Amino acid sequence: MRMGEGVEWGLHCCVTLGWLDDQAPVSIRRLAAWFDLPQEYLKKRLQPLARAGILTSTPGVRGGWSLARPPDRITVMDVVTAVEGPLEAFRCTEIRKRGASGRDAGAEFDRPCGISSLMRQAELAWRRELAGRTIADLMEQAPAGAARTRRNYGRMTD
Amino acid sequence: MRMGEGVEWGLHCCVTLGWLDDQAPVSIRRLAAWFDLPQEYLKKRLQPLARAGILTSTPGVRGGWSLARPPDRITVMDVVTAVEGPLEAFRCTEIRKRGASGRDAGAEFDRPCGISSLMRQAELAWRRELAGRTIADLMEQAPAGAARTRRNYGRMTD
Repeated sequence: MRMGEGVEWGLHCCVTLGWLDDQAPVSIRRLAAWFDLPQEYLKKRLQPLARAGILTSTPGVRGGWSLARPPDRITVMDVVTAVEGPLEAFRCTEIRKRGASGRDAGAEFDRPCGISSLMRQAELAWRRELAGRTIADLMEQAPAGAARTRRNYGRMTD
Repeated sequence: MRMGEGVEWGLHCCVTLGWLDDQAPVSIRRLAAWFDLPQEYLKKRLQPLARAGILTSTPGVRGGWSLARPPDRITVMDVVTAVEGPLEAFRCTEIRKRGASGRDAGAEFDRPCGISSLMRQAELAWRRELAGRTIADLMEQAPAGAARTRRNYGRMTD
């Protein structure tokens, strides 16, 4: 089971745009140079976040990307869901009902399968951790990162 | 992010083999009919569990599959790891170090990235849930499933 690398890009872009809030919007050219990425590749990473109302892009010569709402109102779970979709990682296909196994179950299958329930419970524990932390939390816990980002961004000349 | 269907098969096979312990080993022919699956497909699902020491297969006419250790010593996490591998779903590629972003970081990058740490913490919460539950727990919480399994298996005639 692997999470796409879009989640890591999404979170780093949100934190960076949070730190550069007073410089917003940040042009796609600068943001791509910031991470040493082709612009088109980065755009594809940002689009799901725009569709989810996490980032906003302003058109025009002075346009660019910024957070669409305050960083304390964007949870890490919001970013993960925007990139990976809302579906659970484990999906029950009702194996218990198949073949000889499932015959004459009576009302037993009215209740959810115990395996499915446990997997869901574990995913909820994971979601709770990510829903309880915001982009603002990530920004605050890395003051050195904030200083480095503002310093290095100020040095960009084009 | 999607977990392979092998996890669902692995868990159902372990619980079923736990319930049929007094009939063990269960032939691949019967187990395949049980779940209405082609034998070769099911074998591929069982092999990672055998490699991980969760299931054991006995060769010969009376051979078949059984649990390799007591069901209270097989956690749900064991099965997930056997099928999906031990790697974390989120893998940090150190985006913070890239391009203009990462210049002059000094000792800052000696510490793990906060984004990576948070994603790891969330995965640990997920793993804790799965490591705290065993095949025996799943068996015990579904007494109707145990009865149905023993009844239907007893009716198999070939």
